[in-house]
Amino acid sequence: MHLMDFVALAAELDASDELRSFRSEFAPIEEGLLYLDGNSLGIPPKASLVRAAEAAAEWQHHLVRGWSEWMHIPARIGGRIASLIGARAGEVVISDSTTVNLYKLVNAALDLRPDRNVIVTDDENFPSDLYVLQGIARTRGVQLEIVQIEPDADRVAAVLCRLGPDVALLTLSHVTFKSGWIYPMQAMTRATHEAGALVLWDLSHAVGAVPVELNKADADFAIGCTYKYLNGGPGAPAFLYVREDLITQCQSPINGWMGQRDPFRFGLKYDPNPDISRFMVGTPSILSIAAIEPGVEMVQRAGIDRIRAKSKRLTDLMVQLWEAELKDIGFALRSPREAENRGGHVSLGHPDALSIDLALINDAKLIPDFREPDNLRLGISPLTTSFADVVEASRRIRAVVKDGRAANYAGARPHVT
Amino acid sequence: MHLMDFVALAAELDASDELRSFRSEFAPIEEGLLYLDGNSLGIPPKASLVRAAEAAAEWQHHLVRGWSEWMHIPARIGGRIASLIGARAGEVVISDSTTVNLYKLVNAALDLRPDRNVIVTDDENFPSDLYVLQGIARTRGVQLEIVQIEPDADRVAAVLCRLGPDVALLTLSHVTFKSGWIYPMQAMTRATHEAGALVLWDLSHAVGAVPVELNKADADFAIGCTYKYLNGGPGAPAFLYVREDLITQCQSPINGWMGQRDPFRFGLKYDPNPDISRFMVGTPSILSIAAIEPGVEMVQRAGIDRIRAKSKRLTDLMVQLWEAELKDIGFALRSPREAENRGGHVSLGHPDALSIDLALINDAKLIPDFREPDNLRLGISPLTTSFADVVEASRRIRAVVKDGRAANYAGARPHVT
Repeated sequence: MHLMDFVALAAELDASDELRSFRSEFAPIEEGLLYLDGNSLGIPPKASLVRAAEAAAEWQHHLVRGWSEWMHIPARIGGRIASLIGARAGEVVISDSTTVNLYKLVNAALDLRPDRNVIVTDDENFPSDLYVLQGIARTRGVQLEIVQIEPDADRVAAVLCRLGPDVALLTLSHVTFKSGWIYPMQAMTRATHEAGALVLWDLSHAVGAVPVELNKADADFAIGCTYKYLNGGPGAPAFLYVREDLITQCQSPINGWMGQRDPFRFGLKYDPNPDISRFMVGTPSILSIAAIEPGVEMVQRAGIDRIRAKSKRLTDLMVQLWEAELKDIGFALRSPREAENRGGHVSLGHPDALSIDLALINDAKLIPDFREPDNLRLGISPLTTSFADVVEASRRIRAVVKDGRAANYAGARPHVT
Repeated sequence: MHLMDFVALAAELDASDELRSFRSEFAPIEEGLLYLDGNSLGIPPKASLVRAAEAAAEWQHHLVRGWSEWMHIPARIGGRIASLIGARAGEVVISDSTTVNLYKLVNAALDLRPDRNVIVTDDENFPSDLYVLQGIARTRGVQLEIVQIEPDADRVAAVLCRLGPDVALLTLSHVTFKSGWIYPMQAMTRATHEAGALVLWDLSHAVGAVPVELNKADADFAIGCTYKYLNGGPGAPAFLYVREDLITQCQSPINGWMGQRDPFRFGLKYDPNPDISRFMVGTPSILSIAAIEPGVEMVQRAGIDRIRAKSKRLTDLMVQLWEAELKDIGFALRSPREAENRGGHVSLGHPDALSIDLALINDAKLIPDFREPDNLRLGISPLTTSFADVVEASRRIRAVVKDGRAANYAGARPHVT
């Protein structure tokens, strides 16, 4: 297929795209800019900008009385997110950052398996997750096994074969941050439970992009961020999930007043709430949290199955374009070829990936991101990306390589984000 | 003195108040509303509302590229706060909530005293601090001693007499949340060091209200919140301080990518930064954090010594008013009588404190707060409260008791905040 055929195909796909109208619910961005980094920081919904301004106005006009409403926001958004990840409303709450939530829930999980002392993860998990696990290994004296995933290996088997009688917890990114590989949640959770261990899923690159069925999988714990496919805003607070029957069986190592029963009694003795709020800690950051809700509401309205169907078509198109337009100039496909195994982004390896990334951002009005050592990562957020955008992105990527703009950045240092 | 004499006195004090013009830098609030809860949630600076809107616009227009600037905000605001608490710029950073920061630094402190297993605090410390300490006692198997402070006791002696060879850490609120008592930081830190223990100060009710000299006191650790006298916004992220020489000697139990050396290399092994950022964890919440800076900048500009001088005069006036106008209707002074020992708020005990609080809020346009079991707490934030406000507040308090409005709320339940 030639580029013009892709243009025609994209036009057809866009014309029949049921989710097309959602783009108008997002704030406009710079004219001509192609934004393929919605898996790092999503574009703001117009309603989020309004909500952020409203929260600031509530601060001004309601002052401390605002808390009578603000106090309910973390559980309310938690309930909405629950509907996207196959959980019950009372199992999810907004709190802290993804990393702090991972810390809390890994410790809670280890308390539930006092006779076991190994945590298993893999080297495709997000580095911040690995760092927090290393800290827990150091402070609790447990052992951390980071499974090395070899290219083309059967990664499910590579992980599952580490499950032994010493393993307390398996924790993985459901969709991995570099390749976008999707771990089969249900099968792996079942196998882990059969080995007597618990499972914690990091849903940061999954929520809002792929259907997640935590309850169906009988998953024990999960965490995730809200600023990627949920478009919650830069560094917006994260969510955590604990399966209903486990909530009162375990607790956070970090006890704070937001998890206290009747916190405004100011009792001296910690008495955790018998619900998901016991995993909350300090006072929630309202200006940031308020802005999360519109994006979540939009994903609910669009429907995660329709989002996933479009996402598969978008990334399939990107893979076809890679094959037709980019393979011959040195790009390798680093994401799974089958849409079933792939989340919402596509990674392409290239020896000059960093220079290409910089040229695209600075000289070609395309924002992807670079992931060490040589990945150009293309986040294709279904509610803000059209099929035509994907074709045009491919054209610009080819152009900066072919016309020498990328070569201008040879030797550059990686940038922030 | 009669009420009219107080009115005249207040007019004189307001006329000669050097900080008077700062009120106009804060957003207007409801006409006629007296806000005496700035020690719970400060009134927004106009510039904070502007900054919050700018941060939202940066999200829209810069998208992920915003991080090249946003990444510097936590350290930059930390540097400003350092100047208010007698610390060096590289010793303070914005991160997480006050409670999470306490968790991190208490654990770091305990690591530095492996042969000791007792934490000492008092029962006037903020409950969330007590909860987190109880969690640490449970998870680390250390012992927590909560010193009971008896009314009229010598509280400094009561705490210091618990310092024995087993004590690893003393942690207290520098200004206590109920009575506003100020612990003498320098003397207590010295005594604690002489006993071989470390000290961690919670500055939540101190920062922006009283001068703090962490370096002069040789304090080891400190934490504090930004939404009280720093006017940072509802639930705005908190700050933490670690004395320069201790920074590389210890680390947070919660290792996240914001504390990693060169985080965008995505290395698999945790390698903490050799600076204060090693105590950061996850991605900072920008919409909330951005709004903190203007209030801090304003306190820097007003000068903490001038703020403290006005604060003493304001609370002295409140104490005089209590004696002249409120003592005879059942109010007891629960804050120290000497301004030297008192922070920025005044607590008055009354058997009907809750009903009085509700009547003031609902029927008299005065917002104080209620603290169990029977405290009416009056936060008198120097940059937003005039002397006339204090006199008028006293008049309204007396009025709702005398005219029966308070009695209408008999039997009410405590409210949020």
